[in-house]
Amino acid sequence: MAAEPTTTDTLTPELLTRMNAWWRAANYLSVGQIYLLDNPLLREKLTLDHVKPRLLGHWGTTPGLNFIYVHLNRVIRDTDSKVLFIAGPGHGAPGVVAATYLEGTYSELYPDISRDEEGLRRLFRQFSFPGGIPSHAAPETPGSIHEGGELGYSLSHAYGAVLDNPDLIVACVVGDGEAETGPLATSWHGNKFLNPVGDGAVLPILHLNGYKIANPTVLARISPEELKSLLQGYGYDPIFVEGEDPDPMHHAMAGALDEAFARIAAIQKAAREEGETERPRWPMIVLRSPKGWTGPKTVDGKKTEGFWRSHQVPFSDMSKPEHLTLLEDWMKSYRPEELFDDDGRLRPEIAALAPEGERRMSANPHANGGALRRPLRLPDFTDYALDIPHPGAVEAESTHVMGVFLRDVMKENLASRNFRVFGPDETASNRLQALFEVTDRAWNAQTFSYDDHLALNGRVTEILSEHMCQGWLEGYLLTGRHGLFSCYEAFIHIIDSMFNQHAKWLKTAGEVEWRRPIASLNYLLTSHVWRQDHNGFSHQDPGFIDHVVNKKADIVRVYLPPDANTLLYVTDHCLRSWNRVNVIVAGKQPAPQWLDMDAAIKHCTQGIGLWEWASNDHGGDPDVVLACAGDVPTLETLAATSLLREFFPDLKVRVVNVVDLMTLQPKSEHPHGLSDADFDALFTKDKPVIFAYHGYPWLIHRLAYRRNNHNNMHVRGYVEEGSTTTPFDMVVRNRLDRFHLVADVLDRVPKLAGQVHARQAIRDKLTEHARYIRAHGLDLPEVRDWRWPGGE
Amino acid sequence: MAAEPTTTDTLTPELLTRMNAWWRAANYLSVGQIYLLDNPLLREKLTLDHVKPRLLGHWGTTPGLNFIYVHLNRVIRDTDSKVLFIAGPGHGAPGVVAATYLEGTYSELYPDISRDEEGLRRLFRQFSFPGGIPSHAAPETPGSIHEGGELGYSLSHAYGAVLDNPDLIVACVVGDGEAETGPLATSWHGNKFLNPVGDGAVLPILHLNGYKIANPTVLARISPEELKSLLQGYGYDPIFVEGEDPDPMHHAMAGALDEAFARIAAIQKAAREEGETERPRWPMIVLRSPKGWTGPKTVDGKKTEGFWRSHQVPFSDMSKPEHLTLLEDWMKSYRPEELFDDDGRLRPEIAALAPEGERRMSANPHANGGALRRPLRLPDFTDYALDIPHPGAVEAESTHVMGVFLRDVMKENLASRNFRVFGPDETASNRLQALFEVTDRAWNAQTFSYDDHLALNGRVTEILSEHMCQGWLEGYLLTGRHGLFSCYEAFIHIIDSMFNQHAKWLKTAGEVEWRRPIASLNYLLTSHVWRQDHNGFSHQDPGFIDHVVNKKADIVRVYLPPDANTLLYVTDHCLRSWNRVNVIVAGKQPAPQWLDMDAAIKHCTQGIGLWEWASNDHGGDPDVVLACAGDVPTLETLAATSLLREFFPDLKVRVVNVVDLMTLQPKSEHPHGLSDADFDALFTKDKPVIFAYHGYPWLIHRLAYRRNNHNNMHVRGYVEEGSTTTPFDMVVRNRLDRFHLVADVLDRVPKLAGQVHARQAIRDKLTEHARYIRAHGLDLPEVRDWRWPGGE
Repeated sequence: MAAEPTTTDTLTPELLTRMNAWWRAANYLSVGQIYLLDNPLLREKLTLDHVKPRLLGHWGTTPGLNFIYVHLNRVIRDTDSKVLFIAGPGHGAPGVVAATYLEGTYSELYPDISRDEEGLRRLFRQFSFPGGIPSHAAPETPGSIHEGGELGYSLSHAYGAVLDNPDLIVACVVGDGEAETGPLATSWHGNKFLNPVGDGAVLPILHLNGYKIANPTVLARISPEELKSLLQGYGYDPIFVEGEDPDPMHHAMAGALDEAFARIAAIQKAAREEGETERPRWPMIVLRSPKGWTGPKTVDGKKTEGFWRSHQVPFSDMSKPEHLTLLEDWMKSYRPEELFDDDGRLRPEIAALAPEGERRMSANPHANGGALRRPLRLPDFTDYALDIPHPGAVEAESTHVMGVFLRDVMKENLASRNFRVFGPDETASNRLQALFEVTDRAWNAQTFSYDDHLALNGRVTEILSEHMCQGWLEGYLLTGRHGLFSCYEAFIHIIDSMFNQHAKWLKTAGEVEWRRPIASLNYLLTSHVWRQDHNGFSHQDPGFIDHVVNKKADIVRVYLPPDANTLLYVTDHCLRSWNRVNVIVAGKQPAPQWLDMDAAIKHCTQGIGLWEWASNDHGGDPDVVLACAGDVPTLETLAATSLLREFFPDLKVRVVNVVDLMTLQPKSEHPHGLSDADFDALFTKDKPVIFAYHGYPWLIHRLAYRRNNHNNMHVRGYVEEGSTTTPFDMVVRNRLDRFHLVADVLDRVPKLAGQVHARQAIRDKLTEHARYIRAHGLDLPEVRDWRWPGGE
Repeated sequence: MAAEPTTTDTLTPELLTRMNAWWRAANYLSVGQIYLLDNPLLREKLTLDHVKPRLLGHWGTTPGLNFIYVHLNRVIRDTDSKVLFIAGPGHGAPGVVAATYLEGTYSELYPDISRDEEGLRRLFRQFSFPGGIPSHAAPETPGSIHEGGELGYSLSHAYGAVLDNPDLIVACVVGDGEAETGPLATSWHGNKFLNPVGDGAVLPILHLNGYKIANPTVLARISPEELKSLLQGYGYDPIFVEGEDPDPMHHAMAGALDEAFARIAAIQKAAREEGETERPRWPMIVLRSPKGWTGPKTVDGKKTEGFWRSHQVPFSDMSKPEHLTLLEDWMKSYRPEELFDDDGRLRPEIAALAPEGERRMSANPHANGGALRRPLRLPDFTDYALDIPHPGAVEAESTHVMGVFLRDVMKENLASRNFRVFGPDETASNRLQALFEVTDRAWNAQTFSYDDHLALNGRVTEILSEHMCQGWLEGYLLTGRHGLFSCYEAFIHIIDSMFNQHAKWLKTAGEVEWRRPIASLNYLLTSHVWRQDHNGFSHQDPGFIDHVVNKKADIVRVYLPPDANTLLYVTDHCLRSWNRVNVIVAGKQPAPQWLDMDAAIKHCTQGIGLWEWASNDHGGDPDVVLACAGDVPTLETLAATSLLREFFPDLKVRVVNVVDLMTLQPKSEHPHGLSDADFDALFTKDKPVIFAYHGYPWLIHRLAYRRNNHNNMHVRGYVEEGSTTTPFDMVVRNRLDRFHLVADVLDRVPKLAGQVHARQAIRDKLTEHARYIRAHGLDLPEVRDWRWPGGE
């Protein structure tokens, strides 16, 4: 079934010679970056002074990447294709940087790295050198949307990039080490969600160089039949290119790329012009070439080329004179004098192999997606407001209301095809089903008549893999579009590490002059810790917030809107923002609604506020501050306030609600932080504060520990107690419920010392609740149907 | 290539009838658990009072699981096999619980859930009911080692369980939803690490019921040829069982299991008796059956059986009389009166289908691995001590020393085959290569003559998938063995979510009377944030510690040994412990060594201590406390102390080092927490404390915010600044270096106010450093080769 590699006559001898020269030049520059400080063209005898004192970098994957790159350039020129390059083996930055330098893009963006001998010296010196550039493909690398740090995400980024980019082909090199990761192993299935009409194409190039740091790779050590079967099973039609002798390898690779590009064109023509709707078998290439190809065969008598010893720096103790000779011989084997002219400039006949302008992969506009980004057309979110006659009068599912707004965001931007929603099969479960009034789920596999909103051109993209959802969305955003990832709160930890890498990308990209801001990565976390009625303890974890706030303050935002109207405000705000990661935590279950739209706007604009309607301190000093962040904590806080009003009508209670968690940090640490004066005005300098928080309670201490009144803050939150139980029992088990909050007030307000009757009433209520749920499996009606009594 | 299902004559009509009766009974009990509070045998007309007021649970996957279970029981009896059952679709707990009840195990472990009508009533009532049991397979479930919460880990658990258990077969049901996750997609490759001689067998049963919550599944919607090709590509020989008509399905499944068990036996015989060494193609089964099989075909006119509407509770508004009738009809369709006798006990001819005693999957001893756990034979760790004539006199790679100790742990336990080391291709990189003196890397794929320590019976198990390493280790520990996972610090976030689930398992298992403690899950995190010389910013994240300490205090421990001898102590301690997650963070690079073994033992026994040899407060009050946790912060703190000694000989400096991070928490919050008196004795009540910490600085505030002297604590740590640079530059960028620490002291000790010359000296030094690394790419010799001057 799979096609055999074809040795075409694509490459005339003259062209082959030139392409091989480019490859030699790229390899030469790669070795130079890893090893040399100076003497870039080896015009002097190499000495220890020319060599970097610390050798850091990865040679092993690099010659293979260089080989692929020059061949892609050839086919791009022949077919005038628009290709974006993703280097899964991110350690191959010496190669990626060399290619972008040879194409001229590097010098255009970094004029000090000029196309002459001095530029070469600087190019070499800066690599993995303090103050220079990292040893991975990184935001600094022209043409890259893919951080070469943690492995596993190249293919999902590639599939994200081509969505809604019908003219784009992403050539995605997948390393055989990376291919062992779980996220990569499932991302081959991206082809089941690709629309050959409206989306572009991904050309995976599985690069089997056989080794990781110190081990062979799995895919290089299974039989060729098994490998072919695996890739066909993933839905591809693989073309194999295998060997080590450059000439036949050049012919085979050229033939393979001709064939792959022709098949992509044929598939797209069939789908776009002939109405073909069956899922195509997309081509892919398997390139099996030696690790450290063209490098030293042996070092100190030990096998090096074609072995894991080539993985990083093949030899490093340069105080050995034989190593210096080995390096010089190795670099000279590429014959630099044939490649660069007297000024150190790539010879024009070789340079002519590069495509022109934006056809250069290093200058593909999609790789600087911010420059293509157009703001979303947003409907007026206030049009979706719930009417709230008085606080607590109405019950609603907040995320459902958000879903109606998102539906119209989707509708308004259907024509520009730049907005998608991603999720692991939870869009409907998370109450965003209004989206299906205007679009479908993306799906390109078998369908039946009774299927529900599956379509080739669906814009809700769902697979049961949080990794894939995150990778798709990152690829989509990095190429200039907009999106939202909705997820069960507990399971978002699955992509903790991907979030890390994206947040670090945003931080560094913000420091790269030519990168334009991209749309923010927006999370809706719902089915949250307090409402895991079905799923119990294993689904209870609000710690993603803690993880997020470890990253740079100017990148991250965390919002806990307490009801639907505040959620609308926050959603609109996040969809307008850029270069951020926004985390929105909101409930999907029916819950009392507090603020009308005017109040919601006022509250969210501040991010934190005193709820006067719920307080009775009337602008004076309160006896106690009840603070809350999160929908369930807000409900319990208001219920506690109401109980306190009943027990102790003279007690002055102030209610403070927090939407934007970052307001709690000092202004010096986060741009959204309240000034100390504003913080003191809300929380007082000396009154007890009972803070009911959605997540792990210590986060509030961490954020507020420098505040004046911190020592009086008592925080309740999730303390890892839970099971499959009722909603109210969940808060009781974690002592976040109204009764425990009242008990906390009793413990901390001096003038309430001793209130034996109130304490007993609370204990009785908790006992009654425990008895009731044992008997009925339901919460007590009075806690289940509770409404804020203030306005009634 | 793949075998076709065989309709054997395994099942006589009588046996088929009885097996079908068991299946009906299991399905009946499953529906009963989801829906009923009372009237368990439907001996009265069903009324609303008999039905649970909140319906929580998952029907969809359950009948398929029940079908598989009864067929496994048949083949277990026929072959006397030892089988452990893993239900990847953890939502199928109604089925798993029903099976263990039918086998009698449930009532043996929970006598109140007796084998009679009252027992049935309690069985039904407890399910997903407050105070009862969760709706997933969980620690409470007999025979389970697999939490049915977050999906993706069933196969890696299965492969971990069979390692070194040659007689064990794990029948692992993989749901087609779960199969979309990344971790599951790569874990099929577990067969490349399985030794048919010394390990048992995994029988994957891919259950295609076609739907997730609201979507079809990918693997159910690709062509049968593609699916077969995919599974063959993963190295399996799949047997397909497809249909919905029970009788032929029973025949097909019986034939498939006969064939699978026969092939497993043949493979093991060939390997064990005939010396076959080629990797076998293990059998697996693909079961394609309707979601919600035997449930209502339609509900309210909508397709339900064989569709996603069966996923959870197929119908729930029980106030509709037609729903009550539908439920009664559905349950009666299983003919309970034929299944249970007058007392409500399963009829003996059906009960006789269960295997006996420990052959019951629900009573497999490996599933309560703690009962099988034998302590490791540990060499005396003090024999591996580095000789330290005086602090700082010796430089060594701490993890290398640990590796020598681990080598002998491995050696001492080779015969008992109960210790393994797991890692993502980093064992050698992390300097644990001494292990390869006594064992190899586990490998069962192609090998070449020049390969390095690959062997079928290797006990270092490496794949470039942190998910797989974690899953293997969890499966290995849960079945009663011991192990260690070594990982780059930054990448351990990849398994944040798996750690969560394991920690939650440990918490809950500790509350289940019959579960015995299992060995702790031990992490060595190295290549840590401060020494990412090669890898730069994307590899810099010390936040796993923050993630871990969110879990229950009695489960988690975090150790930051500052040198090799303390690392030896901590390693020994962790390998002896149980029911914990131990996180050890230690460096692999050459670094000064501080404590001889006697001092290390004393220091680690306390977990925190005053280093008198580095302090000059001589038992009196210090002017400042310099605290440190982690090897690099310790080095910088000692260097700062030395500088302070030089600048200000009269300044009284106290150095406190923290090995066990949990000592900082109040005793009320963590069992290792220091008493306030001890904390005050170390940190004083009122003197400035400059705390140099390995990770994100706010964690120290979070742990210590209730301490008396907290307001005087100033913490330095990683603040997300970094690149590919020198080690000292990394600490400078994050202001954790000796010079910034001295500046912090100048800022905070009143009697040093105004020290213009010292400040200028520090600024000059930082400038000199910046110039030097720009020029040389190396740290200044004086910071690179620094030694504690005290003892020289």
